[in-house]
Amino acid sequence: MDLASRIDHTILKPEATPAQVQSLVEEAKTHHFASVCVNGAFVADVARSLKGSGVLTCAVVGFPLGAGKASAKAIEATIAIKDGADEIDFVAHLPTLLSKDVRTAKQQYMEIVRAARSARAQTVIKVIVESAVLMQGVDAKEAEARIEAACQAVRESGCDFIKTSTGFHAAGGASVEAVRLMKKHSHGLYVKASGGIRTYDDAKKMLDAGADRLGCSASVAIIEQARKNM
Amino acid sequence: MDLASRIDHTILKPEATPAQVQSLVEEAKTHHFASVCVNGAFVADVARSLKGSGVLTCAVVGFPLGAGKASAKAIEATIAIKDGADEIDFVAHLPTLLSKDVRTAKQQYMEIVRAARSARAQTVIKVIVESAVLMQGVDAKEAEARIEAACQAVRESGCDFIKTSTGFHAAGGASVEAVRLMKKHSHGLYVKASGGIRTYDDAKKMLDAGADRLGCSASVAIIEQARKNM
Repeated sequence: MDLASRIDHTILKPEATPAQVQSLVEEAKTHHFASVCVNGAFVADVARSLKGSGVLTCAVVGFPLGAGKASAKAIEATIAIKDGADEIDFVAHLPTLLSKDVRTAKQQYMEIVRAARSARAQTVIKVIVESAVLMQGVDAKEAEARIEAACQAVRESGCDFIKTSTGFHAAGGASVEAVRLMKKHSHGLYVKASGGIRTYDDAKKMLDAGADRLGCSASVAIIEQARKNM
Repeated sequence: MDLASRIDHTILKPEATPAQVQSLVEEAKTHHFASVCVNGAFVADVARSLKGSGVLTCAVVGFPLGAGKASAKAIEATIAIKDGADEIDFVAHLPTLLSKDVRTAKQQYMEIVRAARSARAQTVIKVIVESAVLMQGVDAKEAEARIEAACQAVRESGCDFIKTSTGFHAAGGASVEAVRLMKKHSHGLYVKASGGIRTYDDAKKMLDAGADRLGCSASVAIIEQARKNM
């Protein structure tokens, strides 16, 4: 499978300028990445620029803390979809996942799913669970139990993807172990690895561990390295 | 003036548990801090716990990137106010401030102000401008011009405070120079310093530079050090 079509080409730093975002859009069209992933303020412009290109528009919501109310995330997602977002990557409320409270997590996600799919029925929804936070400071068994609980909540709420990381948390980004555990407990969910994937070697490790989609900023360098390795 | 009454006692890390937030609430009641500052998911619980205590509830919005649409921030603020928030600290869209586009910034802020003050007329509104980002990589003259432009947009949109930092950006938190420049160009605005204020010495420097309010997590340690220095 073509590597580019598995990459969400991503720019999320808060000081990103419209010109920098536009240059990402052009790169995505040239290389046929899966999507361009941006913050809410840029969604309408990106969707307009990508129209007819086959590259999707992906918007982050509740980003990067996930510490707002589910109702606020639901409305933020709706606004992004009305602006043209095809895919929504929202951040989960971490305390709920740390305590493996699947029932509450599911309720939170379903509120967002209902709003997003009412705005546009075929919206793809990814839930960022900040796996490095879930897995830090506990033994391997508890870490796996937390990832398994997160997978269950994401799956049963009708979301499409579980996603490792925001790339903004000090605990770290995607790890091979997190992706492997997510794949093991996915039962039909897709897995997106993101945060700290900067080289072709990083990307290959994540795909080998079971990632279906990657979130990267250095996407062009990564696919150029991939071509050299073919 | 009493130091405690100038401190917004703050917990914003995404993995904060309900128990940690509750312990902050108890500290705030004991020491009579100005407010407890939390993410949206905790506002209703905090407001309920603080009722009648004289300590206010402060909610962050669009936090910490400020990269969502103004309309999404406006709705998030409204939700927080309906949950009991007395004060709203929202993050400005940084590219608008980096280009000193006062007119657009003002429009963005006024959308949030209108929504917030419709929900509750006396809502205090602070605008976080991430001063370390505005001041990095440019000479002193341009840095001051950016802070001056930010002050103008915040003031003319009817907000109450200009606030230095989220505490989440790699560029850094509050600096004495940022606070000094904000005070110089405030013309009636209040100034809140936040991000990296961990000791009484840090707090004193910010107050001496002109800060009216401080955002701190180590608030109890700071006022205990202050008492020793009296």
